[in-house]
Amino acid sequence: MTGLDILAQDEYYMDLALKLARNGYGRTSPNPMVGALVVRDGNIVGQGWHQKAGTAHAEIHAMRDAGALTAGATLYVTLEPCCHHGRTGPCTDAIIHSRIRRVVFAMTDPNPCVAGCGAGMLRQAGIEVTEGVLACEAAKLNEAFIKYIATGLPFTAIKMAMTLDGKTVTASGHSQWITGEASRHRVHKLRDQFDAVLVGVGTVLADNPQLTVRHIQGRNPVRVVVDSHARTPLDSLLITDKAAHTIIAVSQNAPSDRLKAYADADIEVVQLPTGPSGIDLRALFRYLAQKGLASVLVEGGATINASIIQENLVDSVFWFIAPKLVGGVRAPGPIGGTGVARLEDAAELEDIELELVGNDLLITGYLTTREGRNVYRDCGRIRDSQECDDQSAIS
Amino acid sequence: MTGLDILAQDEYYMDLALKLARNGYGRTSPNPMVGALVVRDGNIVGQGWHQKAGTAHAEIHAMRDAGALTAGATLYVTLEPCCHHGRTGPCTDAIIHSRIRRVVFAMTDPNPCVAGCGAGMLRQAGIEVTEGVLACEAAKLNEAFIKYIATGLPFTAIKMAMTLDGKTVTASGHSQWITGEASRHRVHKLRDQFDAVLVGVGTVLADNPQLTVRHIQGRNPVRVVVDSHARTPLDSLLITDKAAHTIIAVSQNAPSDRLKAYADADIEVVQLPTGPSGIDLRALFRYLAQKGLASVLVEGGATINASIIQENLVDSVFWFIAPKLVGGVRAPGPIGGTGVARLEDAAELEDIELELVGNDLLITGYLTTREGRNVYRDCGRIRDSQECDDQSAIS
Repeated sequence: MTGLDILAQDEYYMDLALKLARNGYGRTSPNPMVGALVVRDGNIVGQGWHQKAGTAHAEIHAMRDAGALTAGATLYVTLEPCCHHGRTGPCTDAIIHSRIRRVVFAMTDPNPCVAGCGAGMLRQAGIEVTEGVLACEAAKLNEAFIKYIATGLPFTAIKMAMTLDGKTVTASGHSQWITGEASRHRVHKLRDQFDAVLVGVGTVLADNPQLTVRHIQGRNPVRVVVDSHARTPLDSLLITDKAAHTIIAVSQNAPSDRLKAYADADIEVVQLPTGPSGIDLRALFRYLAQKGLASVLVEGGATINASIIQENLVDSVFWFIAPKLVGGVRAPGPIGGTGVARLEDAAELEDIELELVGNDLLITGYLTTREGRNVYRDCGRIRDSQECDDQSAIS
Repeated sequence: MTGLDILAQDEYYMDLALKLARNGYGRTSPNPMVGALVVRDGNIVGQGWHQKAGTAHAEIHAMRDAGALTAGATLYVTLEPCCHHGRTGPCTDAIIHSRIRRVVFAMTDPNPCVAGCGAGMLRQAGIEVTEGVLACEAAKLNEAFIKYIATGLPFTAIKMAMTLDGKTVTASGHSQWITGEASRHRVHKLRDQFDAVLVGVGTVLADNPQLTVRHIQGRNPVRVVVDSHARTPLDSLLITDKAAHTIIAVSQNAPSDRLKAYADADIEVVQLPTGPSGIDLRALFRYLAQKGLASVLVEGGATINASIIQENLVDSVFWFIAPKLVGGVRAPGPIGGTGVARLEDAAELEDIELELVGNDLLITGYLTTREGRNVYRDCGRIRDSQECDDQSAIS
């Protein structure tokens, strides 16, 4: 076989491994989705994917599936095999013991503290290693995990629903429903895929939302309310429905009797420092990441959107536009605050995709600011690394 | 040949005739674009299109091109041949004299006062007539003409440029440039295709625009300023550049010395009645149609947009969205006024198309309100007809 043939073959099997990885969508967090294949003499003799944090890694599943056929075979895996003792023991040991001859992986471990370690240990054991095959595709699939590992912050997306003329509510306060049923289904699918959904207390007071997955089969995200003064009503659905874990983020002067009432209702309360515009959202997001919430979908409202954009916490947007014109100088828009003064200071979207969802438009894209672009763009290579004493994030 | 074969053949030639019609894009107003083919024994022996109001109709060009070969041939024409004496004499007479055996046309004459007349006269003369072949395509091509003939109002489109969060200006008033160069080119192409471009005096005072076609080859539209109190400065480019005809619409109490100064500068002034929100825009649009301006592109601002939507004067939108988020509660949006109170009262878009123009998104669509849908949707059949003493509109 020529080098080109080998590359084409490696990409073919890696593409299959990525498809296997996707079976774990929304279920592996805070671990990445990983898929693996064992190929011997041109036959796929084993396959597997990572199903849940704390359980076996993808390559272990694939090698178990192959049994004795691993000897002399090639292992395809979408992420560099781990070399450290987490909750499951290093995969490199298992690969070496199984007498795999060659390992092909897509992206390097995004944890800068262990990147390259797995490849190095395999090579030391005499195993041929090829890396970087479909690395960008693998990084895109695990963009949330990469952000989380690289920064200690969750991958954060804004979900917006507005009219074509940029209104989220009419001038008289009418907001249900801006978008159609197909868009609401799509939002429930997003909730199923994100670890947490975040709103401001204003949204709780106005809409008493559940923030659960209802229109489709799925699991409910953790619900987070930004609520400086602990105004979330004790009879709000987020507190009473017991459908999912709820975290209420309050300031350090929130009334303690109220916080006790929340705790009595099994609600997690976190007290955070405040700045001039309320709770320190960066501290909140760091707290969420420390709890293993690797991705957050922000569902409003305008003030929180303004703050998280200004704090450079936003990675991407899901922007639903209903093809309606409501007008009105006083009808509110999607982003509040003071806004930027000059157009060149605006946050810009890139990698934009357009889609019709029912009668609505869905615009998705990644946010760039003067501070830089989203990490996944670099195909998994990390720039802003956290301290390397935090290896426990990968298990 | 079977009936199906004949239909397929008729659609094939009509599609070619529609392509010929498009050669007149932006040049035939207030007449429609029309194309024609003469086909004899399976060969195209003549072709033509309507080039300019007051000159020969498409079928005349095609028959002249065919010369003596019209005898026994089939004429394909995208619009029902006229039967009346306008500036050029009835086409039906010319068709009968040329001994055409069969006439196939796409859409019926949208002027309800003469619809069906041409077909009837041809049949009376023993010519086989087939109508309705690609009627909807022909109606879409001439949507502006149909609106104009059907209602005595120009076909009106709003051009908008805003950020993804619905802002046309930052909170501090910065607005150049929201969209990129590719979008600005597209706007100049639109100006080339519309008979008139309309702005409010606020836009003139803020931007001193030219509203001409510059980035591409093209002809300049007539420029219309809505300016109740005659505040358009005498040294503004719309007055001094002499690049195109300018019309300033003022109220009946506009200062007369100012109006005289406009007239001295060769500016057309029209004094119109006013209502609670300024000049009667429906009266203005009717005036523009009476002057033969069959299409108007409205380029701002928020107050005029609100008024023309409320007055039900808008047919379609060209909505450019720059993928930027500027934020700001006080940053203005695209539509002012008081807006609707309930979402179900919003004007809705249909037949939406999405396009990436450079880095911007372009959303186009047709506006529907509770009063009904755009006329072209009915493939040229007219519902709201004007009085039938106004046949001179077709020449």
